[in-house]
Amino acid sequence: MTTVYGGIETGGTWCVCAVGAGPDDIAREEQFPTAGPDETLERIVDFFRVGPAPKTIGIGSFGPVDVDPSSPTWGYVTTTPKQGWRHVAVAPVLRDRLGVPVAFDHDVAAAALGEYRWGAGRQAGALSYLTVGTGIGAGLLIDGKPWHGLIHPEVGHIRIPHDRDRDPFPGACPMHGDCWEGLASGRAIEQRWGRPGSDLPDEHRAWELEAEYLALGILSVVCVFSPERIVAGGGVMERRGLLDKVRARLRGLLGDYLETPLLGEKIDAFLVPPALGDRAGVLGAIALAEATLASDEQSPG
Amino acid sequence: MTTVYGGIETGGTWCVCAVGAGPDDIAREEQFPTAGPDETLERIVDFFRVGPAPKTIGIGSFGPVDVDPSSPTWGYVTTTPKQGWRHVAVAPVLRDRLGVPVAFDHDVAAAALGEYRWGAGRQAGALSYLTVGTGIGAGLLIDGKPWHGLIHPEVGHIRIPHDRDRDPFPGACPMHGDCWEGLASGRAIEQRWGRPGSDLPDEHRAWELEAEYLALGILSVVCVFSPERIVAGGGVMERRGLLDKVRARLRGLLGDYLETPLLGEKIDAFLVPPALGDRAGVLGAIALAEATLASDEQSPG
Repeated sequence: MTTVYGGIETGGTWCVCAVGAGPDDIAREEQFPTAGPDETLERIVDFFRVGPAPKTIGIGSFGPVDVDPSSPTWGYVTTTPKQGWRHVAVAPVLRDRLGVPVAFDHDVAAAALGEYRWGAGRQAGALSYLTVGTGIGAGLLIDGKPWHGLIHPEVGHIRIPHDRDRDPFPGACPMHGDCWEGLASGRAIEQRWGRPGSDLPDEHRAWELEAEYLALGILSVVCVFSPERIVAGGGVMERRGLLDKVRARLRGLLGDYLETPLLGEKIDAFLVPPALGDRAGVLGAIALAEATLASDEQSPG
Repeated sequence: MTTVYGGIETGGTWCVCAVGAGPDDIAREEQFPTAGPDETLERIVDFFRVGPAPKTIGIGSFGPVDVDPSSPTWGYVTTTPKQGWRHVAVAPVLRDRLGVPVAFDHDVAAAALGEYRWGAGRQAGALSYLTVGTGIGAGLLIDGKPWHGLIHPEVGHIRIPHDRDRDPFPGACPMHGDCWEGLASGRAIEQRWGRPGSDLPDEHRAWELEAEYLALGILSVVCVFSPERIVAGGGVMERRGLLDKVRARLRGLLGDYLETPLLGEKIDAFLVPPALGDRAGVLGAIALAEATLASDEQSPG
């Protein structure tokens, strides 16, 4: 019998749980809206009460999160503006309730890991997974390991040029107004145009503006981290034609300064769609559990 | 007798050569303006004709540079706008002329290495060295090793908000106009105000604007790479009071979103001045030579 792992993605909107060993080997999977922390964690515990029993469990959580194994608040969601979730212990509670070792990371780091292990990020030694959904975030992997640094990347809150003559919308971020996420997330699109992006037609001028903002933010990821590949997922990126618009605009912003085919005529192989779709997070959480077991790096306690 | 190393910093403005083993152990050192490539490389060769003979030589060059050891143009300066230097072989020529193994990296990566080895970057596992001089650049180190990714970081060319009502200056970058470097480098200051920054008094409004632009760019470095420390050097950063203004503005931009003392009340220990001053580059080149010998990673050929 193959070893099975548990994967949990506690996203800002949806929570996904799975038990298995990879995308084609999932025994059980369940998805439900992310409610308050008590109710959500209870549903996760219930999910794992049914077998098969995982050897270890990986958790990818919306952030910011504390991923420092030496910290007393390791495994917590920290300063999130999400109602009820500020300073909530996620990994320690699930570890204690479920009685198995758990690995914990940012949801975008887990998604990056999923795409690296089984999807569009394979063999990229310096990989960035970008999600553009309700919010904007990016996970960075170096040789398949999530990069944290001081805390972890929080790309959604960089600032990009905002021409208020062209776009008078003040921004949707409760903390920073017109940061990147405040201008270009799904929430921003909905607030700016008065209806969700999914209700806007392909030819709506929202999408030119969106491509501009996404390219401006991605430029910072390119110029700071210098990734070999960027996998761009999330609900907003599913819009037909958007990825091509972003690629074209990114090339324009770079202006052939960084002389490499991947940032020029081969940009289609640099900025790519996900291969796992919205399963990247939960599959990445399984990959996180698997990697943690492999390296014997168990969570504290 | 201790082993001695050669260090070469070919900066955009000045070229520095040294032979020695560290900041307090330099046998000879020389500095001259960076002229055309033939004349400059000839002066470097002349410098090393006099002893003591270095075991290996490290080179930190202005960029963009090709640092990929498997590339046919390894050791070249690539797409620089600097007159005469586009696609110039630096490291291969010096290796062949001097007959010793050479290590080659971006000048900011070398400076980062110098500060990590002997200066203000010690023990920072995720370190960024930022220089604000004629241009703007940053070197990133992970556990003391220069991070390259696809090419290498080129932070100067990210875009930041530019309020043209407040600052109608169109930007000084010949390639991108009002990119970060185009708005906030020493060259930008000189073009905007009609005289070099060194001629502007401390109370000139140039410095509030400069602090704003620097904080906006540094925010991208913080949110993408998540460094444990940033060493901020270069001629512009020597302005009295500027670093404190940047720290205050950076805290304002973060708005306590990332909850860690280093990005809050302890920001003085996060964004720090260099300890090696303008010697960081050449000392870092010596550290690069030393590290290369230690790891037996010799340059190709």
